[in-house]
Amino acid sequence: MTAISVDIKQMGAAARAASRRLAASQSSVRNGALNAIASKLLEHEPEILAANEKDIAAARESGLGEHVIDRMVLNHDRIQAMADACGEIAALPDPIGVVLEERTMPNGLEIQRISVPLGVIGVIFESRPNVTIDITALCLKSGNGVILRGGKEALGANTVLARIAREAVKSVGLPEDVVQFVSTTDRALVGEMLSLDRYIDLIIPRGSAELVRFVGENATMPAITGGVGVCHTYVDAAADLDKALKVVVNAKTERPTVCNAMDTLLVHSSVADEFLPQLAREFGVSNVEMRADGKAMAALQDIATGVRVVPAQSDDFGQEFLALIAAVKVVDSMDEAMDHISEFGSGHSEAIITEDSETAERFLAEVDAAAVFANASTYFNDGGQFGLGAEVAISTSKLHARGPMGLREITTYKWVVRGNGQVRT
Amino acid sequence: MTAISVDIKQMGAAARAASRRLAASQSSVRNGALNAIASKLLEHEPEILAANEKDIAAARESGLGEHVIDRMVLNHDRIQAMADACGEIAALPDPIGVVLEERTMPNGLEIQRISVPLGVIGVIFESRPNVTIDITALCLKSGNGVILRGGKEALGANTVLARIAREAVKSVGLPEDVVQFVSTTDRALVGEMLSLDRYIDLIIPRGSAELVRFVGENATMPAITGGVGVCHTYVDAAADLDKALKVVVNAKTERPTVCNAMDTLLVHSSVADEFLPQLAREFGVSNVEMRADGKAMAALQDIATGVRVVPAQSDDFGQEFLALIAAVKVVDSMDEAMDHISEFGSGHSEAIITEDSETAERFLAEVDAAAVFANASTYFNDGGQFGLGAEVAISTSKLHARGPMGLREITTYKWVVRGNGQVRT
Repeated sequence: MTAISVDIKQMGAAARAASRRLAASQSSVRNGALNAIASKLLEHEPEILAANEKDIAAARESGLGEHVIDRMVLNHDRIQAMADACGEIAALPDPIGVVLEERTMPNGLEIQRISVPLGVIGVIFESRPNVTIDITALCLKSGNGVILRGGKEALGANTVLARIAREAVKSVGLPEDVVQFVSTTDRALVGEMLSLDRYIDLIIPRGSAELVRFVGENATMPAITGGVGVCHTYVDAAADLDKALKVVVNAKTERPTVCNAMDTLLVHSSVADEFLPQLAREFGVSNVEMRADGKAMAALQDIATGVRVVPAQSDDFGQEFLALIAAVKVVDSMDEAMDHISEFGSGHSEAIITEDSETAERFLAEVDAAAVFANASTYFNDGGQFGLGAEVAISTSKLHARGPMGLREITTYKWVVRGNGQVRT
Repeated sequence: MTAISVDIKQMGAAARAASRRLAASQSSVRNGALNAIASKLLEHEPEILAANEKDIAAARESGLGEHVIDRMVLNHDRIQAMADACGEIAALPDPIGVVLEERTMPNGLEIQRISVPLGVIGVIFESRPNVTIDITALCLKSGNGVILRGGKEALGANTVLARIAREAVKSVGLPEDVVQFVSTTDRALVGEMLSLDRYIDLIIPRGSAELVRFVGENATMPAITGGVGVCHTYVDAAADLDKALKVVVNAKTERPTVCNAMDTLLVHSSVADEFLPQLAREFGVSNVEMRADGKAMAALQDIATGVRVVPAQSDDFGQEFLALIAAVKVVDSMDEAMDHISEFGSGHSEAIITEDSETAERFLAEVDAAAVFANASTYFNDGGQFGLGAEVAISTSKLHARGPMGLREITTYKWVVRGNGQVRT
């Protein structure tokens, strides 16, 4: 074992021990820590910005693309936003100690099911330094210790941010070891972190599909698999085509690089000839490439040039594009659409556009995904949009949490039984 | 790939496809299937008993112990009990389609979180044939397909029971493929089953600690790890020793072979000299061996012969005995007891005996386990005893479900969003 191995194991053990004290702390103390982080962020703004500038200079030198650098950039507004997020999370109701159910049994045992922290959460994330603060705030609020491992591009800023968080935790009398930051980006460390099931209760990868897959396959502790969305929108025979146009364009173009963006459009054959040319014109304006199956190509044959329409290849269906590309397929029934979704979807976000409420209800009931939508954009699948407050991740796992994961989703529960000497015979 | 491999993959695919139809079925139809199983069990009693007799003869021939054979034996009462269990499960409220929360967002989106089946559940179990029916009934009730793989000793009876269940499912118009039975006990099949994450959403091992560990380490889908309980009872300085005696004896002796039986007794030093000799006399009557640490040995030095007291070895702490053996340790404070539990417990069932309610509340709050008890026996950690109805397993996982898993714990949820053309900007 190298020195590094010992360090991360020690971090795990320290986080585990400290998390027991955090779990037993008062809600007001944990909120105090969040508010302390908020003030310290503003106090240390020059130091944070200086570290961030160094990171960016190094990133430019190593030839990283401007879209990555754009996500890394911190400035006064972004630091203020991080501080505001801490304050907002502090103001949310305490997710732990909630009595989820209770009953008194005939033998007099009083049984409660009560929400408690998970323990220690490991988070592996990529370029955006604000994740360091967001995740730390959510973990502290919910009584969980956290081990953070950020991307190498943002190491300088992340190091300062994690130090500030630890100082804030200490300033309210909580053990600073509840926040651990892995200050090297040695790749081997990720593997070691994934082996620490003794200390880490849940691991959350936030980043590329590749990272999520690697973590899912190699973690010895439970991992949230999510963030990969192959999302469909089905425009039904009974759709209001104006609504359909608006919703499909929003789901594809508003933020094409996120997991809840539409990837494949399914259109009922009875409306394809009317709908697809209208859509192609809108997509032309937004520079969306359409990868159309045979029937969709036929419906699009007469449209003006300037619209990018190419024949779909077989691997276009079931692909998460994360770009201004949409696969398009014409179907003859909702059943065909649902079968397609069942085969190619990733269980993330699936939508139907229809004015026929019976059809809508069947789709909502039968399509198996974290979130199903009638007459709304898949882009709404988000903790904030669902009223959960901040979110840690969007899960496509079926167990534990599905869809947006807010504070409640990083807690567990325990059964608390109060008796008076009862025995079971 | 052998023919067997193809079979189990086909089973998985068939269960997956059929489970979609089951998930969309009415509660009354699923209850009808359970009631049909109940009547068919009684109808086919002679056939079931004949298959069971053959299994038992083969088991005796192969030299299996009488305690294993005892668990295998079916008779009229046990078949009636299986039928009754189906009826009771049918009478429980439908666990799916429950609106867990709902809200209307300012933009008019109506958002609901609704319970839905997990999909397909795989269960690997050992000798008791009634598990075939219990698990099938729980899965059908909750809209889940099930793939059953029982132990080889009970193969004959299990084959008949699974066939009866499939016939019953078919008789109410549901696809019989929602119930799949692996009719060979080839060991390689377990490995293949664990690789079918495409078709199986959750795998539940019910059996030895070795089986649970093997499944946990090798399953590609989520697995319930549980069933292994290293359970402690701490007798506090402020304990009512009569209650303590009654509860400790119950937790150790009522059913020593189950996971919620007490393994280690922790006694406060201020009551050890009074309590331990009393307990030793009771344990003597029940033939319990005490493995005592140095201080406990000292407290027990004057007791009569006939009581089995031996010095504890270091590996006695943290061991699940599943037998009439208890490790015994004297501690000087509740903190020392809680530290011991934190180090050696398996997060299953932990109890304190005390009349001091502040002490009890601290223990209940700070000990991290699926179930914590004040003044009651750990043997109460059970779905029926907690008012959940039948149980599938007792989970020591922290994610998804903790403690007894009833019908609700084999469901998941989805977010259902109804809009009127909303887009997100």
